[in-house]
Amino acid sequence: MNEETKDPEMVTAALVVIGEEILSGRTRDTNTPYIAAYLGKAGIALREVRVVPDVEAEIADAVNALRERYSYVFTTGGIGPTHDDVTTDAMGLAFNVPVAVNDEAVEAMRLQYRSEDLTPTRLRMARIPDGAALIHNAVSRAPGYMIGNVIVMAGIPSVMQVMLDEILPRLSKGRPLKARAVRVNAPESEVATPLAALQADYADVQMGSYPFVEHRRYGTYLVLRSVDDQRLAEAFEALWAIIGKMGFTASQVEES
Amino acid sequence: MNEETKDPEMVTAALVVIGEEILSGRTRDTNTPYIAAYLGKAGIALREVRVVPDVEAEIADAVNALRERYSYVFTTGGIGPTHDDVTTDAMGLAFNVPVAVNDEAVEAMRLQYRSEDLTPTRLRMARIPDGAALIHNAVSRAPGYMIGNVIVMAGIPSVMQVMLDEILPRLSKGRPLKARAVRVNAPESEVATPLAALQADYADVQMGSYPFVEHRRYGTYLVLRSVDDQRLAEAFEALWAIIGKMGFTASQVEES
Repeated sequence: MNEETKDPEMVTAALVVIGEEILSGRTRDTNTPYIAAYLGKAGIALREVRVVPDVEAEIADAVNALRERYSYVFTTGGIGPTHDDVTTDAMGLAFNVPVAVNDEAVEAMRLQYRSEDLTPTRLRMARIPDGAALIHNAVSRAPGYMIGNVIVMAGIPSVMQVMLDEILPRLSKGRPLKARAVRVNAPESEVATPLAALQADYADVQMGSYPFVEHRRYGTYLVLRSVDDQRLAEAFEALWAIIGKMGFTASQVEES
Repeated sequence: MNEETKDPEMVTAALVVIGEEILSGRTRDTNTPYIAAYLGKAGIALREVRVVPDVEAEIADAVNALRERYSYVFTTGGIGPTHDDVTTDAMGLAFNVPVAVNDEAVEAMRLQYRSEDLTPTRLRMARIPDGAALIHNAVSRAPGYMIGNVIVMAGIPSVMQVMLDEILPRLSKGRPLKARAVRVNAPESEVATPLAALQADYADVQMGSYPFVEHRRYGTYLVLRSVDDQRLAEAFEALWAIIGKMGFTASQVEES
C-alpha cells in the first residue's frame, strides 16, 4: 500500500482511460500527461492510471476499485453518441443507479443543436446517471458529470480540457507537489549511491532518477519532488553540491 | 467481464507501466502505443494497461491481479540501479520467491562493463527473482526476464524494444487482429445509427467510432477490427456502401 494514499492531507486521484483505440495502439493517449500535470499543479496527486476497453463491466470494475482508494477518480472517453460509448451505462452499473435523458443536459445541448437535430442518437449524450452533477462545456455542449467522487469527461482533448477547468473549483486540493530537476551527464549507476544516501536524509522529498540515451551516451535526470518548498530547496542544494563534488557535468532544468 | 479474455483461442496481455515520472506528467509514455501495436500485429491482444508508482506493494498487487486474468503481463520500468528501481523486489513479492544476483545476468553485463565497473550499484541490475528466465538485450546488456507469464522489461524505449524482439519467439500467439478504417467528414452522431445496425449484423467484427475536431469541424474515424479477413472485408464493404448512400465525403485510411 502506498503510504501517500493514506495521508489525510494529501488529495489523490486515479484516472481511467476508456478506449479500445488506446489499447490497439491506434491512438496515442495525450490526455494522461495533460491531466497528470494539470492535477499536480492544482494539488491533486495522480497515483494510478488504468486503460480499459469499451466494455461496461470492465469500466465499472475499474471505477469501483479506484473510487474506494483515491480522493477522486477521473475518466476520459466513451460518452459520445455511438454504440461503443458505454461509459455512462458503466457508471449506472458501478453506482447501481438508473440512467436517463437529463433535462438540464438537453438544455445545454440546445445551445449547439436545433431541436430537429436533437435526434435520439444525439440524445444518447444527454443520458446521465441519477444523482450526478453536470459539468458543462462550451466546446461541444454535451456535458460531462460528477457522480460521487468520480468525474466523467469526454475523450476529445479540447473538450476534456474545458471540463477539467470547469470542475476544478468544485474539488478539494492539497498542497501542490513542487519539483526541481537536474540533468547529469553520467549513467544513473554513477549517481545511484549518493542519491540513495540523500533520499535517506530527506524522507519527505521524493527522489527519482530517469535515465536517457543521447548520441549513444547514457545520462540521467534527477528529479526531487515535495510539497514543502523549504525542504525541497535544501535537498536540491545538497544534491547539487554532491554532483559538483563528483565532477559530473550537470545543468538545472525547468520542471513544471 | 470481457468475453474476449475468456476465449481460449485468444492470446491476451496486460501492461504495467511502472514510474512516478508518468504519473507526474513529466514523461510522456511512448512505450504503451509501441507495445500495443507490436503485440497486436503479433497476435497478442492488449486488453488493459495500468500505470503505477515506484512502490513495491502497488506493483506486486497490479501484477498479481493481472497475471490471473490475461495470457501475459508485460511490465516496463524500474529495473535500473537506483533506489527507486523496485520492480524486481516487487516481482519477488508477487511470486513469493527470493531475489538474488544472478550469475548469467552478471556474465551478460560483463559484455558492457569492465570487472572494476561492476560496482554493487550496477550489480543491482543483475538481481533476478528465482525461477525467472533472462531476456538478453544487446543495447544495455542488463537483462530483463520472464517469470511465470510476466515479462519484465526496461523503461528506456530503445532497450524495451530489443527485449520485446527477444522474447516474442518464446510466446504463444493468436490470430492477429486486422483493421480497416475510414475517415468520414461527418460528426459521429450522424453515423451512429447505421453503425450500430451494422455492428448487430457483424458481432464478430469489432466496430469503433473515434471523433475528431479539425478546423473547428467534427469528423469521425470508423475502425473495424477482426481476426477473420473474410468477415472484415465483408463488413467493410457494407460500411463503405452505407457511407456512400448517406452522401458523406469519406476516405479509406491506412490502419496498421
